[in-house]
Amino acid sequence: MINETHDPSLKSWVTSANAAGSDFPIQNLPFAILRKVGTDEAWRSAVAIGDYALDLHGLQETGLIAAPALAACQQTTLNSLMALGPAAWSDLRSALSRLLAEGADCQDVVEPLLIPLNDVEYALPAVIGDYTDFYASIHHATNVGRLFRPDNPLLPNYQWVPIGYHGRSSSIRVAPQDFHRPLGQTRAAEQDEPHVGPCQRLDYELEVGVFVGAGNPLGQPVPLSRAEDHVFGLCLLNDWSARDVQAWEYQPLGPFLAKSFASTISPWVVTLEALAPFRAPWERAQGHPQPLPYLSSEPNREHGAIDMKLEVFLQTASMRDQQLAPERLSTGNFADSYWTVAQMLTHHTMNGCNLQPGDLLGSGTMSGAGPGSQGALIEITQGGKVPYELTNGETRTFLEDGDTVVMRASCAREGFVGIGFGEVVGTVLPCRTS
Amino acid sequence: MINETHDPSLKSWVTSANAAGSDFPIQNLPFAILRKVGTDEAWRSAVAIGDYALDLHGLQETGLIAAPALAACQQTTLNSLMALGPAAWSDLRSALSRLLAEGADCQDVVEPLLIPLNDVEYALPAVIGDYTDFYASIHHATNVGRLFRPDNPLLPNYQWVPIGYHGRSSSIRVAPQDFHRPLGQTRAAEQDEPHVGPCQRLDYELEVGVFVGAGNPLGQPVPLSRAEDHVFGLCLLNDWSARDVQAWEYQPLGPFLAKSFASTISPWVVTLEALAPFRAPWERAQGHPQPLPYLSSEPNREHGAIDMKLEVFLQTASMRDQQLAPERLSTGNFADSYWTVAQMLTHHTMNGCNLQPGDLLGSGTMSGAGPGSQGALIEITQGGKVPYELTNGETRTFLEDGDTVVMRASCAREGFVGIGFGEVVGTVLPCRTS
Repeated sequence: MINETHDPSLKSWVTSANAAGSDFPIQNLPFAILRKVGTDEAWRSAVAIGDYALDLHGLQETGLIAAPALAACQQTTLNSLMALGPAAWSDLRSALSRLLAEGADCQDVVEPLLIPLNDVEYALPAVIGDYTDFYASIHHATNVGRLFRPDNPLLPNYQWVPIGYHGRSSSIRVAPQDFHRPLGQTRAAEQDEPHVGPCQRLDYELEVGVFVGAGNPLGQPVPLSRAEDHVFGLCLLNDWSARDVQAWEYQPLGPFLAKSFASTISPWVVTLEALAPFRAPWERAQGHPQPLPYLSSEPNREHGAIDMKLEVFLQTASMRDQQLAPERLSTGNFADSYWTVAQMLTHHTMNGCNLQPGDLLGSGTMSGAGPGSQGALIEITQGGKVPYELTNGETRTFLEDGDTVVMRASCAREGFVGIGFGEVVGTVLPCRTS
Repeated sequence: MINETHDPSLKSWVTSANAAGSDFPIQNLPFAILRKVGTDEAWRSAVAIGDYALDLHGLQETGLIAAPALAACQQTTLNSLMALGPAAWSDLRSALSRLLAEGADCQDVVEPLLIPLNDVEYALPAVIGDYTDFYASIHHATNVGRLFRPDNPLLPNYQWVPIGYHGRSSSIRVAPQDFHRPLGQTRAAEQDEPHVGPCQRLDYELEVGVFVGAGNPLGQPVPLSRAEDHVFGLCLLNDWSARDVQAWEYQPLGPFLAKSFASTISPWVVTLEALAPFRAPWERAQGHPQPLPYLSSEPNREHGAIDMKLEVFLQTASMRDQQLAPERLSTGNFADSYWTVAQMLTHHTMNGCNLQPGDLLGSGTMSGAGPGSQGALIEITQGGKVPYELTNGETRTFLEDGDTVVMRASCAREGFVGIGFGEVVGTVLPCRTS
């Protein structure tokens, strides 16, 4: 719902928030858990405004805002805030917007609570009880399916079921994450027996992460009409994948060690309310079946999707040495998703499965229809057969040690102030083989 | 390692613990979280002894035991105790054994801390961060595989990879659990389009649950030689399954809503130390490959398995009305597992995946080689084609509303006192279709 916090004429007394292209104008106000870098201060919640983080622990002490949601922010995670639901989130957002708006009379009290973003380090925004990864891009499913099953790329359930699986929550970390190339059991096509060694086909996956807000009790499904009430906000997710491990282990129970060595999310959670101006119609292309009634509604068709630009960049070790900026590999859009966030959440709970505040849903790799929009190297390089050539002459089929992957997302719409998600950054370190 | 706590001549002043066939003799001492039923007292940790639970909160107040592990039991979950590791667990177990042994001089102080098991209700023993379900019975994998792929029941990776997948932790409950038959999306073989309705092929799965003790840091695999140091203990697990939902949804990413509506564990966690007398050799049958070196060791071959009898019983609603006891459907043994607990844990971490105290590993359905030893109805009834006839004349292909499933486990060995696991009990309620 568009409200006064989305007003495009609104500016902040934090002037960096008013700069064109800032990820964090006053219309955004995403949440994170952070502290000043290099200290052992307690982790605290904060909202981003321009080039600063506003310390919500300090803000509570000023007594300037009486919102119950601010009291829920006095923890080392956002789970309590997430549990409160949309009305409380919206109240807090409105109060923060007034506090940070040009002309607010409390600037002298609030300004000392701003911490430069360059001086902070982040923790996970929430204790993630369960992590579920969906598979919501039909382009990704088709591209990957073609590599495994050339004659039958898309399985018959895909157009009916928002396919998902349980992921590993313990290995999710906040960006920037450096991790060691995993060891894995794989079998080469020409071999009888498998062997153990460093993953040879290490990949990234460009995903949107969805933080569940208020949960639902076990045994009580969430209907599509209420699904978005259970969504706190969105972030970026890089679901690193060991393709050779995956190919050998995934039948019949799905990916396991191919995914559980590392998953990286961006520090800032952009609330669903901040995304209101960027909602988009969702429809099925010609020739695709309409969803079953439990996944179908007029509001979902009218504005179930989110117009969110998604980009992946790569910086190799030698690019870093040459001081070359990360180079863009692809640009996609979350609006290309075959299922909306609401449909995924409703499907997840149809059997009575309980979601809890802080649970994370991944969208699955978001790929578009054509070249340049594919969200994983396995698609870009057609399973490693067609190397990707970088501007400096290097090539990649899969990730090499020292590679840094950067993902960014942003939303723009005429008549509104655009917002960004910050970055999710991760670097591949060599395998620890001993 | 066998020590003084396993001494078969040891008896307790809690005389019910000395009765032949008691699940909880002084040689067992399993842990649970409980409180007196019908109160709103805080949940507390306890050990079972005969027909009683010893309140470890009250015990700490007496000052009788100085073990650091007892201090870690002063929480509403066992996670802190689980985090301590084998030396601390063993110290506490020895101290409890001395306290409860015949002739102990503190009986008058300890006796008031005993709560009759009939008067307690249970909570989950731990906050389960992640739940991983394995597939460690080759008989189950073959029986189920034959239903899906008659010509190719066992996939080529099975004999090399301890197959597992991430499960849903939020819907795990402690027994007794009553749950509503789940709604699901399924597609009948003769239909083009799927439909939504109550699950028609509801099943149980007889599994052993393994509680992780001390965790490992992300990026640091646990070698086979250290794997058991990370195991706190075992329980029973009923991994309820919606077979019709599973058949339609599981490709290519594995089971999802077919499993996440309910999973039930037994309240008592039997420590690995209590199981020491019942360890058994583990070997590969003729014609099966030896495991890769990271999953192979002399100790694993000599005593990697656990000789643990597993039983499933069914009581239908009309059996309850007729006051007929639950009827046994099958008897299996955990020693038939194709992989040991240590092999599963080491494989799980080979890619650097971090396990945390309180994480739960499921063994997967434990089935033996022949009739009468199959741990799920889908195997017993050959996919619903051969109904199972109960003594009272009722038949079952899959579970019906009102059915109660009971699972029990016990260990026995000549020269030692046998121990039991108590029960995991669950009842199917009708689907909430509105």
